[in-house]
Amino acid sequence: MKAPVHDSPFAKTSEPPYYAVIFTSQRTAIDEGYDATSDLMVELALWHPGFLGIESARNPDGFGITVSYWSSLESIAAWRAHVEHRAAQDKGRRIWYRHFELRTAKVERARRSSNSS
Amino acid sequence: MKAPVHDSPFAKTSEPPYYAVIFTSQRTAIDEGYDATSDLMVELALWHPGFLGIESARNPDGFGITVSYWSSLESIAAWRAHVEHRAAQDKGRRIWYRHFELRTAKVERARRSSNSS
Repeated sequence: MKAPVHDSPFAKTSEPPYYAVIFTSQRTAIDEGYDATSDLMVELALWHPGFLGIESARNPDGFGITVSYWSSLESIAAWRAHVEHRAAQDKGRRIWYRHFELRTAKVERARRSSNSS
Repeated sequence: MKAPVHDSPFAKTSEPPYYAVIFTSQRTAIDEGYDATSDLMVELALWHPGFLGIESARNPDGFGITVSYWSSLESIAAWRAHVEHRAAQDKGRRIWYRHFELRTAKVERARRSSNSS
């Protein structure tokens, strides 16, 4: 999964509480449309009710973290059941990821810092 | 921040609930001991009560995500107040990070998948 390339890499979430889905993964070396599917999933998620934002980073060795933010557990469950997302999840398990961990967490506090110097 | 290089990039957390600190950051181009401090912070955290694990990834453009896992809010607060960690936080704000977001979240569910094929 990747963050939208046309925007800031930071998710613009408002005040907590809200939910985070923390997806950590080790990619295989197999491409088979990974980037296109990843981009499509982000575009679909953008239109999904309750979606607040997404942040994503991957190391050169294929270990990556994607965090998506959601307004409720119900919105997360609905996105997980989305038909095109389910097809992508299946391909992820079979082909794209050697291992992944998926954690659902309730964000209780948030702060930020910017350095303009 | 980086994950320990001598181990799997995945944090070996047990069953929820526990806490996640999601740190997303945009690095500046300034080095000034970043990697050494980052490694030291991970080594110190490993010995800190309540520390459960850490996962980290960074894109080539300097946007990165580090998620550390903790047994309680108290353990997070104690680590945040650690004297060497405070010095590193200060240098992070002044020198190493153009922008960062820090979110504290309670992990409620977790699952994993491994593909041995």
